[in-house]
Amino acid sequence: MSETLKVIQTPIAEELIRFDKYFRAAMKSDVALLDRITHYLIKRKGKQLRPMLVLFSASLCGGITPGTYRGAALVELLHTATLIHDDVVDDSDERRSFFSINALWKNKIAVLVGDFLLSRGLLMALEHDDFQSLKIMSRAVKMMSEGELLQMEKARKLNIDEAVYFDIIRQKTASLFASCCETGAASATDDVEKIEWMRLFGEKLGIAFQIKDDLFDYGQDDIGKPRAIDIKEKKLTLPLIYTLNKASWSERRKIINIVKNHNTNREKVQYLIDHVYEQGGIAYSTEVMYDYLKEAEQILDNFADTPSKISLIELMQYAVKRKK
Amino acid sequence: MSETLKVIQTPIAEELIRFDKYFRAAMKSDVALLDRITHYLIKRKGKQLRPMLVLFSASLCGGITPGTYRGAALVELLHTATLIHDDVVDDSDERRSFFSINALWKNKIAVLVGDFLLSRGLLMALEHDDFQSLKIMSRAVKMMSEGELLQMEKARKLNIDEAVYFDIIRQKTASLFASCCETGAASATDDVEKIEWMRLFGEKLGIAFQIKDDLFDYGQDDIGKPRAIDIKEKKLTLPLIYTLNKASWSERRKIINIVKNHNTNREKVQYLIDHVYEQGGIAYSTEVMYDYLKEAEQILDNFADTPSKISLIELMQYAVKRKK
Repeated sequence: MSETLKVIQTPIAEELIRFDKYFRAAMKSDVALLDRITHYLIKRKGKQLRPMLVLFSASLCGGITPGTYRGAALVELLHTATLIHDDVVDDSDERRSFFSINALWKNKIAVLVGDFLLSRGLLMALEHDDFQSLKIMSRAVKMMSEGELLQMEKARKLNIDEAVYFDIIRQKTASLFASCCETGAASATDDVEKIEWMRLFGEKLGIAFQIKDDLFDYGQDDIGKPRAIDIKEKKLTLPLIYTLNKASWSERRKIINIVKNHNTNREKVQYLIDHVYEQGGIAYSTEVMYDYLKEAEQILDNFADTPSKISLIELMQYAVKRKK
Repeated sequence: MSETLKVIQTPIAEELIRFDKYFRAAMKSDVALLDRITHYLIKRKGKQLRPMLVLFSASLCGGITPGTYRGAALVELLHTATLIHDDVVDDSDERRSFFSINALWKNKIAVLVGDFLLSRGLLMALEHDDFQSLKIMSRAVKMMSEGELLQMEKARKLNIDEAVYFDIIRQKTASLFASCCETGAASATDDVEKIEWMRLFGEKLGIAFQIKDDLFDYGQDDIGKPRAIDIKEKKLTLPLIYTLNKASWSERRKIINIVKNHNTNREKVQYLIDHVYEQGGIAYSTEVMYDYLKEAEQILDNFADTPSKISLIELMQYAVKRKK
């Protein structure tokens, strides 16, 4: 883990260790194959941004409770399940792979493991009559799947404007961030205003996080090649949408033609990327990303200045400055 | 639909129409792509055995309530989701396809649609504070995914005996049948004994249903070729397990070698099938299937003789006599 993240975690360091134990226990299964896979997943654990959001949100709203750990585990089970499901692809060459579980164990197993993790999360919440977390999380699953499908639908037709773009990222990414903060807050307080503030905070942070992700696509990969995975998948994101809107009719046709018919031609894709930079698509998207971050930070004015709040603000900065 | 099923449905014919409306409404989405797929799924609806089990179980336990329709819709959403997830494959040639959704829309969409349907079911139950159905169904999802994974694990090693076989089919198939009957009963009565009887009834019926499915593998497909899909997937089912147990050491080695290394060689597979017939593997499995059916029917002795009960017994017969 990066040093920055370690520092950010300081106010909830012990709590994260307790969460980790809780999470491992939640993944246990009697089926040996399943146990081996979840063991592997635990070892490869990511940045744990989402459990951190749950814990910090609870901390801001009065303090971490047993329900907070459950909420954090539920979020992480769900996030892991969607990552695994996200890895099920038609052609593994076409997409980056968050987990190598797909290559190792094949699509079928990936789907089943995802379903198993989802059901574990549900049962955990049900065992504790934690219906509020369940509602929050079920809504998130619905929004995430609808958001992804909306994006795929639009990718076919290439008819996406800014409004649709924000609709998609609000659903497919920001909804889970919002749910993390909402469920964390709800585990600590009954104050509906505070819970709604935290939900909104999470949503705005999630939008900024996704814009950052989309900006990565215009950067380079580890070996210096243009990333351009979204372009290969015909996903139009903010930098390109902005550029298309500014473009003349003939320029627009040229770009659309590249995305449609030449999205694996390295030279043409490089031309597209350069064009987006020149037209200010990157600068504009970066500005919008910081606008959302600012709006998120303003919401935190409603909460007392505590070490957790300071860390949460640092976490926001990390979310838009991270290198991957 | 077959005439037999239509006759069986008579006592709940109107209720099934009401269920159908409820179910269609539950699938609605604002995303056009999603709406087109669910529309397609509704048109291709199967035998609806599971919603029928929910409605009949409620009927036996005191009568159908609004909660019964919800339980039936939840079951059918979940069943549809698992069918769609089940269709996600590494190589479409290798497996039969329940839905052609996979060929039409690709793996990625199939996973997302499955997730969407699961979340719709959850939200529907949560909106009505129907926690009992949720618990029953979450347990079913967990058992089904664990059961499938257990079968895949065992298929690799080919070390499966009767105890493991029944463990697998109890989890991957009978758990959902049990849940249908349990949730239907629970929507009609608080009598825990009745609910448990119905759960057990569903489990035994589900086991018989799966043995029938496994027997199909030793029959012929529509164009008269041996089916043998399980053998191609190295799944050992009851007819073969019985035969292996009876076999001498050298016979056993020969059969295992076919499953392991020649499971796509038509002649060798035909030899295996003939051998299973000769050794009585089909007769034995059929007998066991009828034993489970009989045990299920005996449980129904606890309930009054009503048109619904008579239909439920006919449904049991249909489950083991169906042609596909």
